[in-house]
Amino acid sequence: MKKTKQLRELVNSQKLEFIMEAHNGLSAKIVEEAGFKGIWASGLSISAAMGVRDNNEASWTQVLDVLEFMSDATSIPILLDGDTGYGNFNNARRLVKKLEQRHIAGVCIEDKRFPKMNSFINGQGQTLADIEEFSGKIKAMKDTQTDADFTVVARVEAFIAGKGLKVALQRAEAYRKAGADAVFIHSKRSDVAEIEAFMKEWAGRLPVVIVPTKYYTTPTVRFQEMGISLVIWANHNLRASIQAMKQLSDRIYRDESLVHIEKSVATLEEVFRLQGVEELQAAERQYLPSSEPDSGEHV
Amino acid sequence: MKKTKQLRELVNSQKLEFIMEAHNGLSAKIVEEAGFKGIWASGLSISAAMGVRDNNEASWTQVLDVLEFMSDATSIPILLDGDTGYGNFNNARRLVKKLEQRHIAGVCIEDKRFPKMNSFINGQGQTLADIEEFSGKIKAMKDTQTDADFTVVARVEAFIAGKGLKVALQRAEAYRKAGADAVFIHSKRSDVAEIEAFMKEWAGRLPVVIVPTKYYTTPTVRFQEMGISLVIWANHNLRASIQAMKQLSDRIYRDESLVHIEKSVATLEEVFRLQGVEELQAAERQYLPSSEPDSGEHV
Amino acid sequence: MKKTKQLRELVNSQKLEFIMEAHNGLSAKIVEEAGFKGIWASGLSISAAMGVRDNNEASWTQVLDVLEFMSDATSIPILLDGDTGYGNFNNARRLVKKLEQRHIAGVCIEDKRFPKMNSFINGQGQTLADIEEFSGKIKAMKDTQTDADFTVVARVEAFIAGKGLKVALQRAEAYRKAGADAVFIHSKRSDVAEIEAFMKEWAGRLPVVIVPTKYYTTPTVRFQEMGISLVIWANHNLRASIQAMKQLSDRIYRDESLVHIEKSVATLEEVFRLQGVEELQAAERQYLPSSEPDSGEHV
Amino acid sequence: MKKTKQLRELVNSQKLEFIMEAHNGLSAKIVEEAGFKGIWASGLSISAAMGVRDNNEASWTQVLDVLEFMSDATSIPILLDGDTGYGNFNNARRLVKKLEQRHIAGVCIEDKRFPKMNSFINGQGQTLADIEEFSGKIKAMKDTQTDADFTVVARVEAFIAGKGLKVALQRAEAYRKAGADAVFIHSKRSDVAEIEAFMKEWAGRLPVVIVPTKYYTTPTVRFQEMGISLVIWANHNLRASIQAMKQLSDRIYRDESLVHIEKSVATLEEVFRLQGVEELQAAERQYLPSSEPDSGEHV
Repeated sequence: MKKTKQLRELVNSQKLEFIMEAHNGLSAKIVEEAGFKGIWASGLSISAAMGVRDNNEASWTQVLDVLEFMSDATSIPILLDGDTGYGNFNNARRLVKKLEQRHIAGVCIEDKRFPKMNSFINGQGQTLADIEEFSGKIKAMKDTQTDADFTVVARVEAFIAGKGLKVALQRAEAYRKAGADAVFIHSKRSDVAEIEAFMKEWAGRLPVVIVPTKYYTTPTVRFQEMGISLVIWANHNLRASIQAMKQLSDRIYRDESLVHIEKSVATLEEVFRLQGVEELQAAERQYLPSSEPDSGEHV
Repeated sequence: MKKTKQLRELVNSQKLEFIMEAHNGLSAKIVEEAGFKGIWASGLSISAAMGVRDNNEASWTQVLDVLEFMSDATSIPILLDGDTGYGNFNNARRLVKKLEQRHIAGVCIEDKRFPKMNSFINGQGQTLADIEEFSGKIKAMKDTQTDADFTVVARVEAFIAGKGLKVALQRAEAYRKAGADAVFIHSKRSDVAEIEAFMKEWAGRLPVVIVPTKYYTTPTVRFQEMGISLVIWANHNLRASIQAMKQLSDRIYRDESLVHIEKSVATLEEVFRLQGVEELQAAERQYLPSSEPDSGEHV
Repeated sequence: MKKTKQLRELVNSQKLEFIMEAHNGLSAKIVEEAGFKGIWASGLSISAAMGVRDNNEASWTQVLDVLEFMSDATSIPILLDGDTGYGNFNNARRLVKKLEQRHIAGVCIEDKRFPKMNSFINGQGQTLADIEEFSGKIKAMKDTQTDADFTVVARVEAFIAGKGLKVALQRAEAYRKAGADAVFIHSKRSDVAEIEAFMKEWAGRLPVVIVPTKYYTTPTVRFQEMGISLVIWANHNLRASIQAMKQLSDRIYRDESLVHIEKSVATLEEVFRLQGVEELQAAERQYLPSSEPDSGEHV
Repeated sequence: MKKTKQLRELVNSQKLEFIMEAHNGLSAKIVEEAGFKGIWASGLSISAAMGVRDNNEASWTQVLDVLEFMSDATSIPILLDGDTGYGNFNNARRLVKKLEQRHIAGVCIEDKRFPKMNSFINGQGQTLADIEEFSGKIKAMKDTQTDADFTVVARVEAFIAGKGLKVALQRAEAYRKAGADAVFIHSKRSDVAEIEAFMKEWAGRLPVVIVPTKYYTTPTVRFQEMGISLVIWANHNLRASIQAMKQLSDRIYRDESLVHIEKSVATLEEVFRLQGVEELQAAERQYLPSSEPDSGEHV
């Protein structure tokens, strides 16, 4: 099944679905192998992995290059955390074209201004986009896609910007009318109150996506009961890898030896397996001359 | 001190020094924070992180883009695992120019053919380069560098290709004469026999670099006694992150919840700290208007 | 009609067809507007436009980035001058995947070694690839394509390397058996003797492509009579632009004024038209708010 | 002399100086060979050459990649037409770092909003930036540069946006106070009235840069008399190449032959010379083995 269709079904599915963060080809493959049905290409994780900030410091084509590796390495759909669409409606619709070429199944854009500031950081970056401008952007994206199943998710940052439920609903409704396929309602509270209030009034007008990074203690069954469609585990592979690399680097630095860590890290064979070395070796047997074409060995 | 000078001193230092693998800006920063004096930009790790194979599937400029993020994120020197130099002498000298622009302190090239095959994999890729051709490549690289302290390490793959000590020494000597600043003698044996034999005959003609991935049980003091200059812990941050992400993804997939993993991963605040969010917030206070600058039409 | 299908029909057409060189999105669009049915993405022109040599100094992904702009700007098929495939069979088949994603209709690879040297320059770069190795490369490319109409052209450099007709035929036949869709027989003679000799013996086993840069005085009707399928005008847009820019720059430098050149260059309006400004202005009317959307805080 | 120093001297020179547009490595080299002392890396030309619009459709790193080729191919300074700095102060200061790495001597930013619209096109894109926000951007850029001679030019779009002299002066003065090294005052009138009015009141507070694309009939001596420092011939190499390629492509399409155009385009030898083939051939003699290391010729 095409990746766009897979994502469409995840978003529209009656049961609660889950997708998991990845930030490069490797983590994307690990997400797929773990059994997940989809990948969240997190803007925070991709920028952090690069060593830059989640404020559009990397260009949108640098992000695209990462996505291409992620898409090539996997067969499940990728939903891109596309920030604000990287500019106005024209940048956003150009993005859609480029994503389709790379078989990315969908993109989520948030109603803030370019350059964005991560939603979990307070600061001047948390200014909302003009509602009409953002709706035009969604419309432009939907008009641009050539694959009917490509998914555009509208992320409502009203709660993040300190606005109330009324604003959140007004914006979500505007984006729905503009053609969004789903709404992502975001909250940085440690409880689920904002989400719950929204879900009650929203009443299933479109599928709803959430990121429970801050209200992670909420039992998953509650999400189901509220009628959430899709939960994104949004940045945890990155955070696991940071923890692991810090501990490992510290240990090796202290020990000046690998002897105590060798058993705790993936084997070289596992690295090679994840890279698909076996396929290449089979291909070499098929496509390379049986004898070495020329030796180069004067020694 | 300039990064090139730092690396030069590491390589020439009388005591045994250590550098640690990184594969993106984030891991590079973690290596620096752990206390290491230098970073090994591993070809295996960079390709694996991308989700491709260590056979020059990523182009050399795609690798360069990763290096630029790594260099920007850190203040310690980076030694690039530059495969075969990505072609002939002309490609290799072009690489040197591009590395200098990005403040990469040195590059190690190996005497195999393009495209390369990872040295720990058996196969047709383990054919040695012509010794004269490879020496010309080193000479071209040394003639190209504009910073006198830029380091070129010649990696001798004779043992990897199944050749004996005589070939290893002959090649190392040729590369020394061609101008290499150090020799990297590689072995995939689980003991240190090949390295030891080489060190005895080599007799300190140039600093020697090793990667004890396979003979990791050898006590580090042995490396010191043999007169090794620099030990590279070559791929362990990658392998630690794979292990961590696999376990984490499996757990979240099974639990459908973050509740059991939240304490075991780096906090969001730690992610933001590694990205340098604080500097940006200070800069916003300095450079952004105190009030929201939205209209642009105040004049 | 899909671009791959368009190119396939050009190559297989009973009548003599012509494609024209381009080296960026702009020249590609000009080629299409002139009426040509296809575009030759010349390795020489693309490298020269970048300011580097035709010796794989630009990486294959840098070339790919240029191709993407060319493909996005046009609706006629592009045949890439893919040098040697940028490495071995594995690099070449990876190239095919990347070309298909960017809607490039086909690629021509030549039986030389990486890095290549332009065929019109004498030198050590004109060494032929191993025939078996090159045949395996073609086979790998054909096995990789997912669009049945993607075209792989095998370029025979036997005459360029100073080999005779026998070698040329032997190689062309090997590549045909390996699955090539057409043969490009290259010659740097100022007459058509080598081509003619080849065509006589080849006897239409596969469509034949030529580049008459050096034997340009040969009347086109001769190509038709010989049974050539496709003529490539291989580098002339680049050469026309060089001539024009040299004269223009010299003139402005001398005059310190635009007054004598304004009428001899394309108007700004023509630049804007080629860029498609009109479409954007219509889109702005459709997708941007009618009033200036600057504040974002209307809600 | 360093490129930054060269540009600084051009901008500060008492006599009227001229720089000329280029849009890739090739045109940059042609500009240098014509005798110009500097290069204008035009946003319009670079985008048009790519086949996209001058509305930040290409990402800033795609522009950077073009600049790197231009800088590598030349020894005279390049002044980048940096649009709005590609975002806010943080994007703009990041740009400065990247430009310095690539030896670009300076950048000009304009006081409009991201994404920009070419100044010669009417439309909604001609909204001015907040004056305080833009001043903060300039300050951030100046604080970021590590080379004291790196030049930041502030482009005042007041006249383009239909504002009067008072606004133009107010903005120019604000940008001067923020640390700009020069002011670029832009006008799309076909006469020099706006420029003249500005120069009179400006009274030499900072060097002034102009682009007389629209008022090209004004005799250059007038610019000198007004006290202009630097004239940019902003897009003419692009426009000359368009004219030439259109005529050439049309002619070849019609003729189905090269016979009538061969004498009117640059020779292949001239292409090779511009690429620097001679240097490579000398280097091959120096660095490649005298005999072919391995023949690959089983035929």
